Amino acid sequence: MEDLIQVKYALDTFYFLICGALVMWMAAGFAMLEAGLVRAKNTTEILLKNISLFAIACTMYLLVGYHIMYSSDAGGVLPSFGFLLGAENTTEAVLAGGEDAPYYSARSDFFFQVVFVATAMSIVSGAVAERMKLWAFLAFAVVMTSVIYPVEGYWKWGGGFLDAAGFNDFAGSGIVHMAGASAALAGVLLLGARKGKYGPNGEIYAIPGANLPLATLGTFILWMGWFGFNGGSELKVSDVVEANAVANVFVNTNAAAAGGVLSAMLVARFLFKKADLTMALNGALAGLVAITAEPLTPTALGATLIGAFGGALVVFSIITLDKLKIDDPVGAISVHGVVGIWGLLAVPLTNTDASFGAQLLGIACIFAWTFGASLVVWGILKAVMGLRVSEEDEYTGVDLAECGMEAYPEFTSTK
Amino acid sequence: MEDLIQVKYALDTFYFLICGALVMWMAAGFAMLEAGLVRAKNTTEILLKNISLFAIACTMYLLVGYHIMYSSDAGGVLPSFGFLLGAENTTEAVLAGGEDAPYYSARSDFFFQVVFVATAMSIVSGAVAERMKLWAFLAFAVVMTSVIYPVEGYWKWGGGFLDAAGFNDFAGSGIVHMAGASAALAGVLLLGARKGKYGPNGEIYAIPGANLPLATLGTFILWMGWFGFNGGSELKVSDVVEANAVANVFVNTNAAAAGGVLSAMLVARFLFKKADLTMALNGALAGLVAITAEPLTPTALGATLIGAFGGALVVFSIITLDKLKIDDPVGAISVHGVVGIWGLLAVPLTNTDASFGAQLLGIACIFAWTFGASLVVWGILKAVMGLRVSEEDEYTGVDLAECGMEAYPEFTSTK
Amino acid sequence: MEDLIQVKYALDTFYFLICGALVMWMAAGFAMLEAGLVRAKNTTEILLKNISLFAIACTMYLLVGYHIMYSSDAGGVLPSFGFLLGAENTTEAVLAGGEDAPYYSARSDFFFQVVFVATAMSIVSGAVAERMKLWAFLAFAVVMTSVIYPVEGYWKWGGGFLDAAGFNDFAGSGIVHMAGASAALAGVLLLGARKGKYGPNGEIYAIPGANLPLATLGTFILWMGWFGFNGGSELKVSDVVEANAVANVFVNTNAAAAGGVLSAMLVARFLFKKADLTMALNGALAGLVAITAEPLTPTALGATLIGAFGGALVVFSIITLDKLKIDDPVGAISVHGVVGIWGLLAVPLTNTDASFGAQLLGIACIFAWTFGASLVVWGILKAVMGLRVSEEDEYTGVDLAECGMEAYPEFTSTK
Repeated sequence: MEDLIQVKYALDTFYFLICGALVMWMAAGFAMLEAGLVRAKNTTEILLKNISLFAIACTMYLLVGYHIMYSSDAGGVLPSFGFLLGAENTTEAVLAGGEDAPYYSARSDFFFQVVFVATAMSIVSGAVAERMKLWAFLAFAVVMTSVIYPVEGYWKWGGGFLDAAGFNDFAGSGIVHMAGASAALAGVLLLGARKGKYGPNGEIYAIPGANLPLATLGTFILWMGWFGFNGGSELKVSDVVEANAVANVFVNTNAAAAGGVLSAMLVARFLFKKADLTMALNGALAGLVAITAEPLTPTALGATLIGAFGGALVVFSIITLDKLKIDDPVGAISVHGVVGIWGLLAVPLTNTDASFGAQLLGIACIFAWTFGASLVVWGILKAVMGLRVSEEDEYTGVDLAECGMEAYPEFTSTK
Repeated sequence: MEDLIQVKYALDTFYFLICGALVMWMAAGFAMLEAGLVRAKNTTEILLKNISLFAIACTMYLLVGYHIMYSSDAGGVLPSFGFLLGAENTTEAVLAGGEDAPYYSARSDFFFQVVFVATAMSIVSGAVAERMKLWAFLAFAVVMTSVIYPVEGYWKWGGGFLDAAGFNDFAGSGIVHMAGASAALAGVLLLGARKGKYGPNGEIYAIPGANLPLATLGTFILWMGWFGFNGGSELKVSDVVEANAVANVFVNTNAAAAGGVLSAMLVARFLFKKADLTMALNGALAGLVAITAEPLTPTALGATLIGAFGGALVVFSIITLDKLKIDDPVGAISVHGVVGIWGLLAVPLTNTDASFGAQLLGIACIFAWTFGASLVVWGILKAVMGLRVSEEDEYTGVDLAECGMEAYPEFTSTK
Repeated sequence: MEDLIQVKYALDTFYFLICGALVMWMAAGFAMLEAGLVRAKNTTEILLKNISLFAIACTMYLLVGYHIMYSSDAGGVLPSFGFLLGAENTTEAVLAGGEDAPYYSARSDFFFQVVFVATAMSIVSGAVAERMKLWAFLAFAVVMTSVIYPVEGYWKWGGGFLDAAGFNDFAGSGIVHMAGASAALAGVLLLGARKGKYGPNGEIYAIPGANLPLATLGTFILWMGWFGFNGGSELKVSDVVEANAVANVFVNTNAAAAGGVLSAMLVARFLFKKADLTMALNGALAGLVAITAEPLTPTALGATLIGAFGGALVVFSIITLDKLKIDDPVGAISVHGVVGIWGLLAVPLTNTDASFGAQLLGIACIFAWTFGASLVVWGILKAVMGLRVSEEDEYTGVDLAECGMEAYPEFTSTK
């Protein structure tokens, strides 16, 4: 019997670690997606942003963020501060049994959580691409991953007041995706649009991405990684009910992404008379974001429809943001923010434990906090070091200005 | 004891889900392989085909295909039609024990199967690249993934007449790979060769792929994903015999791919006096296809040789198809079709339960059905909406004509 | 009870196989990293080298290397030779229990080990890029993977004299990474620098890589694969202590990579006044190499610091090697060799079972053997077939000379 408890502990830990590795892999997905959707002259810098934000997220969350998110008081709003990880579970504690006995490694929990922080931060980098100063972005990443994200994460997953209020967010349509999009929106508003994106008379100019195979690869990576993101968020696999639940989450995550692709393609076909690859990619991601708030209770057909609605929504959202001159080169605010809200509101459609009231409360609180806190931090950074590169550097490309090297020195002649 | 049955169920389910995620990842592999092997002007469209066929496969197989494949009568030829998934296993049913008790989640089975359908369909997109209309292709994908593939899948894996006849196909050299290649062949025959591929006096012109690192990446992705494809097809891992079997499948799958690379390289070196990267990539895939029909019974050395024969075969097959003016831009018909047949015929060499007669019967039935049914569907599509883009669009590239965007707008000057 | 032993065996085997698949994936990482860092005209050949060296490694290690490494006498220096794999474990042997009973599939062990050999060999290909003859390289790969690596691997992991002497190397900072770098250094010394790299008056010219998104992708792939590399090297997961250990290895591996990125970026910023993407990538890899010798005993903060020291070290090492005119296009000797030594020397800082004396002995023996044996083999190859392509071929690019095809025929005009 004691051996059996140990095997269950080992299986749940291994499941957590593999799901975590898949979520880490999403960092590569964001990097490729964003690198594919910017112009060649801004590619090196976005790659560097992606790998360095991941490193910052891992380090800052280790130092302070994890403690804030998971060691603060139950039911509260204000977090408590602390440093580093707690102790690992002893074999005795595991074998003690009972409801409170740990059933997976504390370190595997940290590993799974730390890659989530990086995901939230990755969402920001795409939206501010092609004109933000690298070091200002990295400074923001430090604050976002050590405080802003952990605080709202604590409100729900750390057992804070949103959890007590009955807010439902299975794997983070709100806590991760909408939060990242809210921080991005604050940055974009202070930063302004790229030169040449909007004309004086309301014209909107397309700025095509330089490398669509990369963007497609990034989307496939994210799709794959999402099995870890949602699948691991069940937090347990080691009995029949839990194994069935994890399997259901995999099926629904996949179905929603598929639904998102199809509806985004059809809507774009109807609106633009063309089969639009970037909308199909955004549709896949929208489907994934939409199902993330509740991938367990829908049927597979229901998940397809939730994803399909997200895929249609993202097309209209991208068009609308452009009309509002909110310039988001990769569509991150639409994909993660607007569709994230849809995902949260869709939870009560299939999960009888959820209510629209609690979902709206969660949306309002997470948005208010992440948008407001981000606006303050971006604002301070703007005053202290400036957020935007010079007009000349933007014209030449941030790669040469910030990194001193081109991403494709032999393919283009930007010099 | 009941807890132990539950842990085994959880482990087998988790194994299925991870293997399924690896097979899903193969969709990215096909996308990158094909995008790397076509010309720049046709890249956006092939990327879009790949992600949308995956979405169609997931949706149509959910709606009707899975029912056809796994709920039709034992031993039969004609499938029965139905809609959506069945119920998930209850804990009671699992704990009831006995031979018939389910030992993994029904949802995990669906997840594993649905990514196989997508694989079969992915094979088609490469062969018809650079000249087929996008929407005709997608219409075909709907029929292929909802009916054509599920029917022949039922014949073997769903317990139909080929299973009763003793046909052996462990993970689908025939059911998945040769079937995909047969559908592709029917399309290619109705579609004709690309402009400029064959001269009036029997000349064959090489049309180089635009991005060989992508093609190589795609091959590595497929190689990795194949561990899930073959490894998961053992269907169980939770005891010593099964765990050993899964490990053996991993070793043999890897050995066959390695053998395929080496023999394709050496044969190409002998024939062309050069070290041919694309043949090495095709050799890897040929090795993988060859071992897929039986990755369990060969020794590791035997698997290397089965793969090596596949790798040599694919080089000759590609040359031969070109002489027959069957234009397959990525070599899919050779890799998956010709080598798939080799894999099926190699089964009796190591598996004493298999016979050449049953293997030939399976090859004939699968080919006749998938080629015949595909020919009818392609034919109807040709009559109704046309299969081929206009000569002008083919010259300009299908990217601008069908998708309105270039894959690499800054690297090439195709405008 | 017997069923429970079987489930544990299955879980440990499955864990081994998944970790092995992640290490196999590192082959794609090296291929992309190296393809991104060379010039366009040498890309096809480096891709071909990477896939064919993997195939050679898998085949030669199967044929002879595995036997040398794991079936030679305990405590010895000279290996014994043999052929192919041993028998798989029987259920009886597993259930016999006791300390010596096998607890995972012998085939899964081979699978995990064979992908390590390929990693060691992958390190070589980058360092000799852009000027070495393909077939000479492949001939070296045969010897390296069948004899040179297995012999020093036997000394530690096969229970040879370094193991007896108390040398510690958890997952192979020395056995895999420094060994690969030593073989590379021997080749580079005999091969000489690329034309145009160093001027007559001590000038050092940067030769920028053609495709930095690929290099970044490769780094992310390696980062992900390293969870299998280090995580699988714990060799067991199926009880509380082991599961905790594997989780700790995942956390520390990730933390060290993050630390490496940050310190390399900051050091490069200080030295070059720019945010240097390639140094950040090398920093990530340096962090990973540094922690590989001991990812279990440090705290997460300690792992971050060990990685950070590696990340700083790699920047200075790359600069120093360039001053010594040791031309290593991808920085492999610095990343895997110099930082590998740091990783080995850092073991006694956190692992009280290790001593600096034993670590120095291991470093000296592994370097002496791999460097010496490689120098002999490269020397013989130089005499027999020549190592270096002609000056004209180097100027034109090895792609056309060796492979007869360009990697990016539409993006560049190297013809």
